[in-house]
Amino acid sequence: MPLLPDAIRDLIMDIAPPAEELRPDAQTKIDNKTKPLGALGKLEDLAVQMSVIQNDLNPGLRRKALFVFAGDHGIAEEGVSAFPAEVTGQMVANFLAGGAAINVICRHHGIDIKVVDMGVNADFDDHPILLQRKVRKGTRNFAVQNAMTADEAAQALENGAAVFQEANRKEKIDIVGLGEMGIANTTSATAIICAVTGVSPVEATGRGTGVDDKGLAHKAKVIQKALDFHKPDPTDGFDILQRMGGFEIAGITGAVLAAAAQGTAVVLDGVISTAAGLIAYLINPDIHGYLIAGHRSVEISQSAALKHMRLEPVIDFGMRLGEGTGAAMTIDVVDASCRIMREMASFDEAEVSQQT
Amino acid sequence: MPLLPDAIRDLIMDIAPPAEELRPDAQTKIDNKTKPLGALGKLEDLAVQMSVIQNDLNPGLRRKALFVFAGDHGIAEEGVSAFPAEVTGQMVANFLAGGAAINVICRHHGIDIKVVDMGVNADFDDHPILLQRKVRKGTRNFAVQNAMTADEAAQALENGAAVFQEANRKEKIDIVGLGEMGIANTTSATAIICAVTGVSPVEATGRGTGVDDKGLAHKAKVIQKALDFHKPDPTDGFDILQRMGGFEIAGITGAVLAAAAQGTAVVLDGVISTAAGLIAYLINPDIHGYLIAGHRSVEISQSAALKHMRLEPVIDFGMRLGEGTGAAMTIDVVDASCRIMREMASFDEAEVSQQT
Repeated sequence: MPLLPDAIRDLIMDIAPPAEELRPDAQTKIDNKTKPLGALGKLEDLAVQMSVIQNDLNPGLRRKALFVFAGDHGIAEEGVSAFPAEVTGQMVANFLAGGAAINVICRHHGIDIKVVDMGVNADFDDHPILLQRKVRKGTRNFAVQNAMTADEAAQALENGAAVFQEANRKEKIDIVGLGEMGIANTTSATAIICAVTGVSPVEATGRGTGVDDKGLAHKAKVIQKALDFHKPDPTDGFDILQRMGGFEIAGITGAVLAAAAQGTAVVLDGVISTAAGLIAYLINPDIHGYLIAGHRSVEISQSAALKHMRLEPVIDFGMRLGEGTGAAMTIDVVDASCRIMREMASFDEAEVSQQT
Repeated sequence: MPLLPDAIRDLIMDIAPPAEELRPDAQTKIDNKTKPLGALGKLEDLAVQMSVIQNDLNPGLRRKALFVFAGDHGIAEEGVSAFPAEVTGQMVANFLAGGAAINVICRHHGIDIKVVDMGVNADFDDHPILLQRKVRKGTRNFAVQNAMTADEAAQALENGAAVFQEANRKEKIDIVGLGEMGIANTTSATAIICAVTGVSPVEATGRGTGVDDKGLAHKAKVIQKALDFHKPDPTDGFDILQRMGGFEIAGITGAVLAAAAQGTAVVLDGVISTAAGLIAYLINPDIHGYLIAGHRSVEISQSAALKHMRLEPVIDFGMRLGEGTGAAMTIDVVDASCRIMREMASFDEAEVSQQT
């Protein structure tokens, strides 16, 4: 295992798969609820998964948290985004003011939101929901060099892990959604996913915030050139992260590892969050049982990453915003599934006749 | 228009399409929110639709209601269901005790639930959430005769409409979900959908609560025979309802018409609720703008009905329970979409740079 910081090495040692031995009992419990077998579809799968994660046939989400990790990207110089780079910092200000989509959805679902500056090219005053964890004011342009030094990548992973650990220490987090903001970061995420899964940039590149056909072809070309330049080892998550990642992506990867180590359910969001989850999965596949794929992004490469991790997304609303919006919508679906597990009557309890 | 009861005739005269003239302003408002154009997918479509329905650029769901209409079916005699017919009444008791899936989901989302006995083959004591509107203890077997007399069908439509009207009079309902319970009612719903859309029972028949391959083939055969026997006019909703419907289906149809007449958003549920919506749509297509397809059911014929009405379902969780469970999950998605319309900042408000 190359170059992992000590804190992350320690984390990985703490990760164990969830309590799979409870799965048969959880399945029996949901099967005996007053409904035809399997009739609640994904809600049943989530109810069983949460029982296994919490090692409890009465799973519940007392505390729901969401972190929006933000960072700027040197690759933005290549003209890969429909929005100018200063939007990263402007959107962080919007998160702090409570006006972004993710703020609205977290308010709606009672999810505690925190914004983490991992590497934004702007300075922010202190704010109750801002965690200042900046490693550097943006990555380097990975078209022509490594996005980060090994030390920076290690620091970013550690910062991401620490953010989760500190919040979880204050009050146990039962489920965590992981979102992001960073202009040009679909380029970074797609490069990571292509490197790991072997899909080609021409197939896998999406429009991000909305580039046109010409911009899309250009973006795919930039990613292909970067892959040709770096020739990343598809099994070395840390190396891929350092070469082509982003500070917010590294932050999410660290948070995924930290959450899995604490036995907390992790809800991934769109293509960037999923790419970060994929790096974490490469670093330690034992996290698998804690992962929930929040939503099916419009971004094509996300599907390749989910397939690689054998994950099926919960919702499919044609969303492509990021920020954690898909994860936040899904957290409430998971919440509903836990209540079904706890509160729904069995055939025996309700004295309802079973299938003939 | 044949044989419609006076109350329903009056209702239909009150139905007008929603305020389409507000649509351009609603679209502009959502387009100017701090996100790439269209990046919230279906949430944006719902936000615009709710603005149009409420004729208000700040739509909201103060009061959310759900009705579970229940009725028994003579067609159950043909052995078309995996569950015995007494389960209809047993499940009504389960609803009243608060132990069914729909109770849990309504509690989770703050939706006011009422259960309507439209035609269950059992007697119930009074209960705070039960509305006693029984027309008859179950329909007749539509394989060999009409399911209802014209008077019964008219009465059932009127009862369904009245249930909505009375609740709405007490306190204005902003959105209503319509679910059902009735052993063998996927057979009735599928027959209705085949009659209206022209799809064949062999293609369109699903497993309902879970019949096996032999049961599935038998069920399709029963539906085909009934269609051959009745030769229903595909444009005459009331006639189709009377011949092959159920009392709970008629109740939903009446409630849809009453809700549309009051300008209330209607969320359909699975195949049975959608079949009832289809009958309402035949009776008056002006209801279209008020309809929201809650979820994609596993039942195949539902897709044909949705296509006929040009509706796209909001969620797709592999559910096939009915009761209104898909509608109730969707009501909260609509609620989130309204909050996005009201609370999210615009590019100008947040001082975020726009697409270049």
